[in-house]
Amino acid sequence: MIQIRPILFALGILVSVMALAMTLPAALDFADDSPSWQGFAISATVSLFVGVLMMMFAYDSRTVRVGVREGFLLTASCWALLSVFASLPFLGIGLPYADAYFESMSGLTATGATVITKLDTQPRGILLWRALLQGIGGLGIIVFAILILPFLRIGGMQLFQTESSDRSEKIVPRAYELVAAISGVYGALLLTCTSLFVVLGMTPFDAICHALATVSTGGFSTHDQSFGFFVSPALDWVAVFFMLTGALPFVVYIKALRGDTTALWRDAQVRGLLVFVGAVSLVMAVYLAARGLPVLDALRLATFNVVSIVTTTGFAHGDFSTWGPFAVGVFFLLLFVGGCSGSTSGGIKIYRLQVASILTRSHLQHLISPNRIVTLMYNGRRLPDDVPFSVLAFLAVYMSTIGVFTVILSAMGLDVLTALSSAITAVSNVGPGLGDHVGPSGTFATLPASTKWVLAFAMLLGRLELFTLLVLLRPEFWRG
Amino acid sequence: MIQIRPILFALGILVSVMALAMTLPAALDFADDSPSWQGFAISATVSLFVGVLMMMFAYDSRTVRVGVREGFLLTASCWALLSVFASLPFLGIGLPYADAYFESMSGLTATGATVITKLDTQPRGILLWRALLQGIGGLGIIVFAILILPFLRIGGMQLFQTESSDRSEKIVPRAYELVAAISGVYGALLLTCTSLFVVLGMTPFDAICHALATVSTGGFSTHDQSFGFFVSPALDWVAVFFMLTGALPFVVYIKALRGDTTALWRDAQVRGLLVFVGAVSLVMAVYLAARGLPVLDALRLATFNVVSIVTTTGFAHGDFSTWGPFAVGVFFLLLFVGGCSGSTSGGIKIYRLQVASILTRSHLQHLISPNRIVTLMYNGRRLPDDVPFSVLAFLAVYMSTIGVFTVILSAMGLDVLTALSSAITAVSNVGPGLGDHVGPSGTFATLPASTKWVLAFAMLLGRLELFTLLVLLRPEFWRG
Repeated sequence: MIQIRPILFALGILVSVMALAMTLPAALDFADDSPSWQGFAISATVSLFVGVLMMMFAYDSRTVRVGVREGFLLTASCWALLSVFASLPFLGIGLPYADAYFESMSGLTATGATVITKLDTQPRGILLWRALLQGIGGLGIIVFAILILPFLRIGGMQLFQTESSDRSEKIVPRAYELVAAISGVYGALLLTCTSLFVVLGMTPFDAICHALATVSTGGFSTHDQSFGFFVSPALDWVAVFFMLTGALPFVVYIKALRGDTTALWRDAQVRGLLVFVGAVSLVMAVYLAARGLPVLDALRLATFNVVSIVTTTGFAHGDFSTWGPFAVGVFFLLLFVGGCSGSTSGGIKIYRLQVASILTRSHLQHLISPNRIVTLMYNGRRLPDDVPFSVLAFLAVYMSTIGVFTVILSAMGLDVLTALSSAITAVSNVGPGLGDHVGPSGTFATLPASTKWVLAFAMLLGRLELFTLLVLLRPEFWRG
Repeated sequence: MIQIRPILFALGILVSVMALAMTLPAALDFADDSPSWQGFAISATVSLFVGVLMMMFAYDSRTVRVGVREGFLLTASCWALLSVFASLPFLGIGLPYADAYFESMSGLTATGATVITKLDTQPRGILLWRALLQGIGGLGIIVFAILILPFLRIGGMQLFQTESSDRSEKIVPRAYELVAAISGVYGALLLTCTSLFVVLGMTPFDAICHALATVSTGGFSTHDQSFGFFVSPALDWVAVFFMLTGALPFVVYIKALRGDTTALWRDAQVRGLLVFVGAVSLVMAVYLAARGLPVLDALRLATFNVVSIVTTTGFAHGDFSTWGPFAVGVFFLLLFVGGCSGSTSGGIKIYRLQVASILTRSHLQHLISPNRIVTLMYNGRRLPDDVPFSVLAFLAVYMSTIGVFTVILSAMGLDVLTALSSAITAVSNVGPGLGDHVGPSGTFATLPASTKWVLAFAMLLGRLELFTLLVLLRPEFWRG
């Protein structure tokens, strides 16, 4: 039997924390004399009431030891349920419920696709709330990816199991210390990013909101023009730096802080991500320069947009869909890539692409010399036996998932490019897609309400690395 | 060392056969008093000269025993080289060389994407030549898939190794008997199809050409309107039937002919293909009927187009891209599917999708109960140990290949939908893609010449199940 009550207790804590977080935008809107503070106050009260009720109901089960199934169920229900409570304040500014749920799911999964238009005239509380959702969601994702995923053995994440559990390479002795360390690094990145943004000319409010959106690789902005609003090369480069920090494996930061100073550069994923992003940015910069842009602008705009999509932040800066067919083709593929494991970014992720390419190479060798035995190495270690299968199965299911969502969305009336690219951008938790509606200069606001529910589900599925949610569909999961 | 000379000898035979085949359209055009007979005569002479020269040069190596590498090299070079000779007659009607090579590769790979416009006014010799290329190519593919692929162990094809080699279930004792049996079945299907087409009102010439295009699942027509030219429900249904026969595993036909009469229906792939095609056609028919089409027309058009795309024939019958977003979304995905292994059809193929779905299901079970051991069964047998990996690696490389071609084609100026859908349709050997240019009512003629070379290569890569060609890129392949 699955233990429901300990899950309820944990969810109760999280809902209550969410309620407390709502007091921040409530206070801001109250100070701004904006009537939307009431929406936050009501939402906070309702959420706190339900959260505390859940905790009380399940209080005596709070220390029950739980297994793998409870891990799956807690993770899956946590994002789905928190989005319900997080969406309440959006109802206060008159958003239809589908839109409110889409927006909060987009925030908590750090996707950053938005249905709110005229951002520049929205109450600051609402803008802060969107930013906070990403901040909370981003931290939640790192913790989920480092502490839970390796033990659920999903999509090859068992590769990183040793990093956090193996005795010989123990980096932090116990889980809560690891959470504290992750939160510390995350907080430090947020603080540094905010400070630099302020120093370089953003208002403190914009700086806080954009730092939350940058480090969480979420990508909600406080302006309709997104990051293009700030006409400052220095700000662009700082954002590039911090989007990348959000997309690197947080375990490696902790190693580095504990004295292993070369850990970052020795890590195959870190090198892979940086080399990939550097190479693609350079190609795109040459292409933009050839189209007549000054060289430095070309380099900056190319790097910003490539980093924004690959890290799955999704800030817009100009509209790459006007850069000609080559750029559109490249950005279409970049929607799949994603950052590193154990970071805030989504997508397929660098290590899976690296493992897949190692496997392909060794498979070709095997076809040529069937009797030769090759030991597969990744990141300086032997690849565990079940990783190749897990990674390839993940890729197959990733592609199928996008296919299924494309058909569902086109059945709801979206043209094939909008359907396909919004399916990819949602499952990859990037934000913008391609085409007039969901492209970098559009919003998801114009889509039919039904598609917003579907896309919210797609974001959740992608965020939970597909399998966390898919196992719940198997009858064995629910059987004794 | 790779033995080049036996490969040359085999290629010499094939080039000479190709030369002899050219005499048929030459004779037809001569009889029609069309000057294009000279083009065929010259092409035949040149090809025969080169072919015989190759045979003579390598004559003393004709019986040298060859290994796996020579198998790879022969298969890869055979389609690439034969397309060179097959393209010569197209130069005679003034086609630029890129177009001529594209057209002959499209024929020999049974893709059926065309760059020739105003088909209805072309010399009959040219139309017959296009049809013959598909006929030859289609037979070549079946032989390649049944005799060679299982031994190269490509993409899970080792699944079918036992079917043609295992002593206990030996269906035909020796390779040349198997080739004779396959050719017999293929010829019988062609003959029956041609006869029925004539009976139902096609001219004998149209009947021969369309039978060659149908059974080979190639899809070249003799009319710009493709199969939509014939306004006859009966012809449509006969075409549906024979497209399906071309997409079923030919080994199973041979089993059935040797007395195992229930072999067809017991085969997991056969059932899978028919159930899948039936279900999708039904859904599409309901959708078309809901849009106002009479029920029988809806059923016929839906089935014809679904079968045409899934079997990778690619005949057009009306333009499904005008059927609304849902239809376009569905047909976009159908471009990937493909028919059965050991048939003339391309695409991912039914057995790979079935194996992938079995693997996904068992992977989910494994995530839920890590210690449970599950035996994977497919088609009534235990799945060989290396099949799961081969199949998943194939899927990953399939998707990556399409991604790479999408970027290359968009760099050459195609918009993203045209680039993506023509990459898929070429690698899957279907024929038409999506969008104004390459959609069912367009042709590839309007594309830049550079993209035609790229697409011809993509067809070759898809036809050879990717790995046959990719191994040639590995340095180990060429080393001692």
